[in-house]
Amino acid sequence: MSEQPPTKQRKVEDAKVSKEAFLAVFENLAKDVLDDEFVKRQPEYAQKWISFMQSYNVPKGKLNRGMAVLDGLLTIKPDLTEAEVEEANILGWCIEWLQAFFLVADDLMDDSVTRRGQPCWYKRKEVGTVACNDSIFLEASIYRILKKHFRTKPYYVQLLDLFLETTFQTSTGQLLDLITAPPGVVDLSKYEMKTYNTIVEFKTAYYSFYLPLACGMVLGGVDKEEAFESCKEICVEMGTYFQAQDDYLDCFGDPEVIGKIGTDIEDNKCGWLICKGLEKMNEAQKKTIQENYGKKDPSCVAKIKAVYREIDVEKDFKEYENESYKRLQELIERQTFVPAGLYMKLLKKIYKRQK
Amino acid sequence: MSEQPPTKQRKVEDAKVSKEAFLAVFENLAKDVLDDEFVKRQPEYAQKWISFMQSYNVPKGKLNRGMAVLDGLLTIKPDLTEAEVEEANILGWCIEWLQAFFLVADDLMDDSVTRRGQPCWYKRKEVGTVACNDSIFLEASIYRILKKHFRTKPYYVQLLDLFLETTFQTSTGQLLDLITAPPGVVDLSKYEMKTYNTIVEFKTAYYSFYLPLACGMVLGGVDKEEAFESCKEICVEMGTYFQAQDDYLDCFGDPEVIGKIGTDIEDNKCGWLICKGLEKMNEAQKKTIQENYGKKDPSCVAKIKAVYREIDVEKDFKEYENESYKRLQELIERQTFVPAGLYMKLLKKIYKRQK
Repeated sequence: MSEQPPTKQRKVEDAKVSKEAFLAVFENLAKDVLDDEFVKRQPEYAQKWISFMQSYNVPKGKLNRGMAVLDGLLTIKPDLTEAEVEEANILGWCIEWLQAFFLVADDLMDDSVTRRGQPCWYKRKEVGTVACNDSIFLEASIYRILKKHFRTKPYYVQLLDLFLETTFQTSTGQLLDLITAPPGVVDLSKYEMKTYNTIVEFKTAYYSFYLPLACGMVLGGVDKEEAFESCKEICVEMGTYFQAQDDYLDCFGDPEVIGKIGTDIEDNKCGWLICKGLEKMNEAQKKTIQENYGKKDPSCVAKIKAVYREIDVEKDFKEYENESYKRLQELIERQTFVPAGLYMKLLKKIYKRQK
Repeated sequence: MSEQPPTKQRKVEDAKVSKEAFLAVFENLAKDVLDDEFVKRQPEYAQKWISFMQSYNVPKGKLNRGMAVLDGLLTIKPDLTEAEVEEANILGWCIEWLQAFFLVADDLMDDSVTRRGQPCWYKRKEVGTVACNDSIFLEASIYRILKKHFRTKPYYVQLLDLFLETTFQTSTGQLLDLITAPPGVVDLSKYEMKTYNTIVEFKTAYYSFYLPLACGMVLGGVDKEEAFESCKEICVEMGTYFQAQDDYLDCFGDPEVIGKIGTDIEDNKCGWLICKGLEKMNEAQKKTIQENYGKKDPSCVAKIKAVYREIDVEKDFKEYENESYKRLQELIERQTFVPAGLYMKLLKKIYKRQK
């Protein structure tokens, strides 16, 4: 290996954002956690638990959030060194670790059965509520990874603040989601568009949209506070639109295309359709909702969908979609802190998606 | 109020470490969290949940860990300004928040019934597994408090690293504890002194002993890495001794004095007595343990205690206690980074305690 030139400083001709390259970085980071001085001090059976637990929960998603860091950074700084590509991917994985931390806890709280095509972690017989601590461990691992790889960088504290703030926001959104629609309680007065927007902003938009782009901006040398504020505003709009799409597709999407059968109505979810729909329903329609929402019975679900069709909530969604796109374009064009491509790349991926 | 001189810079003649003064600081910090920009954006019912949840869980303990920060700082810097006293108490409360975060999760995982004289948080009918997210919210609140009060200090990043490292260590210890003695499984081969020491070091010593003293040291201007390493070594010894005492008192202490009836044997706990005892038991005694440990039946508990008396594990504890005290004195006298009082004050409070 001694003949090889130092590669980390070398410019990467055409940095590829590929799932394979990104997954290779996971292997290194998983090893970093297992080689951590405190983990090495544990008995072998505990080390094995950690190894299996993080492999089971961290790298199994679509990895869109994680890969968005490098993707975003490239719009700010098209010529990257190998070291810069690696840094972007490490931060991308920290976001995937963050998501795993939340999903492991969410599944336990929502009593979910499957996640990413496999049984939820807490559903495994040896796990159960230990998942609660595993979730905490996954979160704490993020800061071991950040410390190992970014401790000496001038933007280290900025990264810590960013991940910590995002965690606070997400747990606030998760709380609101949990107490707005507790299992088995259908309280229509709580299903308001304002509440929906708050849940989505806090539970989803910050960690799924703002965090990856903000990480790219930090690595790209952006440091103006206003640049981050502008990014937040755009990402909240984009994240809200993304979640509204999710809710729309859950009911009106083609199960063959989206790859699952929606259950938001059965699950009593405070989703976009119910919040928007309630604004236009008459008393009789509201009564049908009150009596049939949140029930597993297919005939109840059919009655809800019939009301949705009566009030043509699909049309409202299409209108919202067009308006949201316009708002986003305006917000993106108006700001000059970062190339519009940072946002447009992401927006193009999600606009009018069918899955 | 305008006639009053600025008091924050004024030296405090004799800084009092009192529970009342410390509790007054809690009220301000609880308000900081409720006044947080992201919390203010939530619907009123979510703000009320947060308010009640943090009051229910954070300030209900003995507060020894939290008050140890100011107590420790005073040994390093006897003349403090009011601002310095407040900073110490804020960090003290961050430790109490950290403990609340862990206890809320632990109780859910251990299926506990009461905590600090009231039903465990997750036991409340409106809470249940939502406690998992409340625990995450409590943790995330620490970093909102730290950011608000210490963002501009040169040691801000040191504080973040300290709390984050401690969280990682504690979750590692909690994992080991959970998988070493899962409910209903008595696997004597796992009850080894080495495992016990690792559990205690990671689950208890870092957050209960090292974290408060390290916070005091940071505020006291200590910055040598070796000073913190030395503090860690001493605190691990002290924390281990403290937990061993806890385990000893659970079985041999006077319930009237300690204020509760011990249930470590019934709870299948990997405690000091069982780990030490197994080193000296003959096969017949081990068989009795195997058949009776971890059972609620009082006659089973009596059989375990009879074996403990046969092998006189009490004597072993007394020997360990004396040796540990000697080791601690040596470690404390050998180091010159901080006044010995920092450690001796704490040690005197716990040595040969009856409760």
